Amino acid sequence: MPLDFESIYAAGKFTDLRIPRPRRAKYDFAVAYADPGSLPHADIVESLEEALTEYGSELAIYTHLQGNTKLREYLVERLLNNRDINVTVDDIILGNGSAETIDMICDILLDPNDVVLTDQWVYGGTLKTLKKKFVDIRGIESDEEGMIPELLEYEIKKAIDQDNKPKLLYLIPTFQNPQGFTITLARRKEILKITNKYGIPILEDDCYADNRYEGNQVTSFFNLDSEDSVIYVGSFSKIIGPGMALGYMTAPSTVLDKIMGVKRGRISDFTAMAVERYANKFLDTHIVKINHIQKMRRDAMVSALGENFGTSAKWSNPDGGLYIWVEFPKGTDVQALVIKSLDQINAGFHPGTDYSPDPSKGHNFMRLCYGYNDTEDISVGISKLAEFLSKEEII
Amino acid sequence: MPLDFESIYAAGKFTDLRIPRPRRAKYDFAVAYADPGSLPHADIVESLEEALTEYGSELAIYTHLQGNTKLREYLVERLLNNRDINVTVDDIILGNGSAETIDMICDILLDPNDVVLTDQWVYGGTLKTLKKKFVDIRGIESDEEGMIPELLEYEIKKAIDQDNKPKLLYLIPTFQNPQGFTITLARRKEILKITNKYGIPILEDDCYADNRYEGNQVTSFFNLDSEDSVIYVGSFSKIIGPGMALGYMTAPSTVLDKIMGVKRGRISDFTAMAVERYANKFLDTHIVKINHIQKMRRDAMVSALGENFGTSAKWSNPDGGLYIWVEFPKGTDVQALVIKSLDQINAGFHPGTDYSPDPSKGHNFMRLCYGYNDTEDISVGISKLAEFLSKEEII
Repeated sequence: MPLDFESIYAAGKFTDLRIPRPRRAKYDFAVAYADPGSLPHADIVESLEEALTEYGSELAIYTHLQGNTKLREYLVERLLNNRDINVTVDDIILGNGSAETIDMICDILLDPNDVVLTDQWVYGGTLKTLKKKFVDIRGIESDEEGMIPELLEYEIKKAIDQDNKPKLLYLIPTFQNPQGFTITLARRKEILKITNKYGIPILEDDCYADNRYEGNQVTSFFNLDSEDSVIYVGSFSKIIGPGMALGYMTAPSTVLDKIMGVKRGRISDFTAMAVERYANKFLDTHIVKINHIQKMRRDAMVSALGENFGTSAKWSNPDGGLYIWVEFPKGTDVQALVIKSLDQINAGFHPGTDYSPDPSKGHNFMRLCYGYNDTEDISVGISKLAEFLSKEEII
Repeated sequence: MPLDFESIYAAGKFTDLRIPRPRRAKYDFAVAYADPGSLPHADIVESLEEALTEYGSELAIYTHLQGNTKLREYLVERLLNNRDINVTVDDIILGNGSAETIDMICDILLDPNDVVLTDQWVYGGTLKTLKKKFVDIRGIESDEEGMIPELLEYEIKKAIDQDNKPKLLYLIPTFQNPQGFTITLARRKEILKITNKYGIPILEDDCYADNRYEGNQVTSFFNLDSEDSVIYVGSFSKIIGPGMALGYMTAPSTVLDKIMGVKRGRISDFTAMAVERYANKFLDTHIVKINHIQKMRRDAMVSALGENFGTSAKWSNPDGGLYIWVEFPKGTDVQALVIKSLDQINAGFHPGTDYSPDPSKGHNFMRLCYGYNDTEDISVGISKLAEFLSKEEII
C-alpha cells in the first residue's frame, strides 16, 4: 500500500503547484522575455573563461552562503552609482532571480491573514507568492505619479481599525509592472512619510530601473528612507537574461540575519563568476544597446496599437520597462480569450486578472510585453490581435 | 527612529544565521571540497559553448520551474542506469545543490517537535537544516552494515508510545557522511520492511553513490521500495564541483506537487546548460578519473593515520566517498582544538560534535576529508596533526 503522505505533511497551508511551462506563441506578448538576438553569448563565455582562469579553482569549494563575493562587491558599486544605495558587501545576498529573495522576505514577515498592501495591479509573480502565503492582499489605486498617498493612508487606517496593521507595502516604483508608471520623487517622499508614520516596511522591487530609455532616473526608496524600513531587491534577468536566474537583495541588518536563516542552498558560483566578470566589463554598454532596441519596440507597439486598436481601448506609453497596459471597455473579458488567441492567431498576452489581488477584477485589462519580438513581428502581431479582438467584439 | 522589525516578523521560529565563510587551512581536511586540479574547466566551457549554440536563445526566456528540461532528461537516463530508478522527466526537480531539495522536503513534512530519525552521526548540513526546523532529532546506532534494524524499530516504537510517530528517516545509505559505511542490500531490505510497516518515509541522500572506487554498487532504497515511501536526492557537487550548486530530487508525485508549492525561484539555466552538455559528453570519464585520484588520497590518508596516530585512535577505511571518521579515547575533546589547529599547524578538521544530534556527544570524534589536498600534503598534514594531537594529549 502506498504511503499516505497526505496524513503526514506539515501543519502549514500549502499550494500544490506542479505546472507545465506556459505555451508560447509566435507573437509572444505574454511573459516578460528578453530579446533573444541580443543575448551576449560570446561576451559571457569570454567573461566566464577569464573568471575561471583567475579564480576558477574556487568551484572546488563551497561559495559564500550569501553568494559570490566578487559579484557582491560589484553590486555594492553598482547600487551606489545607479541607485544611491550605500551598503557593504556583507549587506548583499544573492538569490535565484529576485523571485527567491521576494519569497524569503515574505516567509520571514508574513503569517496567513496578514495584510499586505500593493498596487491595484500587481506583478503576477509576487501576487502568486503572496497568495501562497495566504495573506490578505489589498490593492491601492494610482495615478500617473504612482500610488495615491491618501488612498494608501486610508487603507492603512482601515486595516489598523480591523486590528490587522499592514505588514508590508510592496512596490515596483520604477516602471511598475504591469502599469508602467514611475513614482515621482515627491510622491516617493509622501509615501515614505506615511509608511514611516505607521511603522510599515516597504519592499522595493527595482528590477526595471536600468531599463530606462527616456526621462531621468528617480532615486530609490531605499536611499530616501531614513528609518531603515526599506527592503530592496534587484535582478539581472531584465539586463542580461532570465536564464541566468540571478537576483539580489539588501535590507536592514536584522532582516538579512533572518533571511539567511531561511535561505536554502547556494547560488551557482559558475553563473555568478560569469556574470561578475561580464558585468564589470560589458554590462553598461550592453544596457545602452538593449534599451535602444526596447525603445524601438515600444514605439512599434504603441504605433501599432494606435493604428489598429481604435478609440475604445486605452493604453500606457512607458519611459522604460517592458510592458504596455491596455484597458478595454468595462464589461469586456479578455481572460476568456487567452487560449483562443494562441490557437487562432498565435499571439500570447496576459489578461489583467493575472495582476489583480481581487480575482473578480481585471477582465477588461491586458498586459502586452514588447521585449521578445522584433518590430516587424510586433506590428504584424498587434494587427492580428486587433482583428481578433474586433471579431470577439472587445474593440 | 528605525523601524522595529522584531515586532513584525512572522510567528514561526527562526534561526538568525548570517555567518562568515569558514576559515580555510593549508591542510584542509575540514569541509568536503573537491580536487581543484581536476576541475574540468576547459571541457565545461566547451560544453557551455555547444549548448549555447544549440539552444542558447532560451536564456532569453524563463526556464521550466522544475529546471532545465534537457538536464532532467539526462538525469532520467542516469538514474535508471546507475541507481535502478525508473522515473520520467516530470518527476525530477532541480535544486541549488541537494541542500535546497532537503530543505524543501523538511519544510513540507516537518513541524516543530516532530521526531526525525537519523544515524547516530549525521551529515552536518542536514543536521543544521533539521535544527532550523526545531524538530526532535533522534540518532540511531549502526554497525559496519549500516543502521541497526532492531534499534530503528525500538526508536519508532518509543516515539509512537510518546504519541509522536517519526515523520522521516534520513539516510545517506551509500558512503555515509561522516562514517563512510554503505548499507548492505540485506540491511536495506530490513530497514524498508520496518519503515513500511510503520508508514514512515525515507529521505535517501545519495550524493556520494558515484564516488565509489572499490567494491560493488548497492541498489537504491528508491528502487527497493514498493510503497512509494522514498524521497531521493542527488547532486553534481561531488562529481563536478560544489561551485555548480546543482542538485536534484525525485519522489512520489504528491510530494513533488507540494515541493513545487514551496520552491522559490528558478535554478540558473546557464549552469544547467553547461552541466547538461558536459554530463552527456564527459561526466562518466571524469568520474573514473576523480575516483582514481580519491582512491590514492584515501590510501595516503589511511596510511598516514596508521604511521602517525598510534593505537589509541580508530578510523574508518571507506570504499568511496570523501571522509574518514576517527574515534579518539573517551573523555578526549577535539572540538576545543579546532581553532588552535588552524593557528598552530594550519590544518582543518571537523569535530564529531558537528555531526551529533545530541550536542553533548561527539567530542572524541573527528571527520577528515581527503578530497582537496594532494597525497603529499595529506601525508605531511596528517603527520603534523598527529604531532599536534599528541602534544594536546589526545593520542
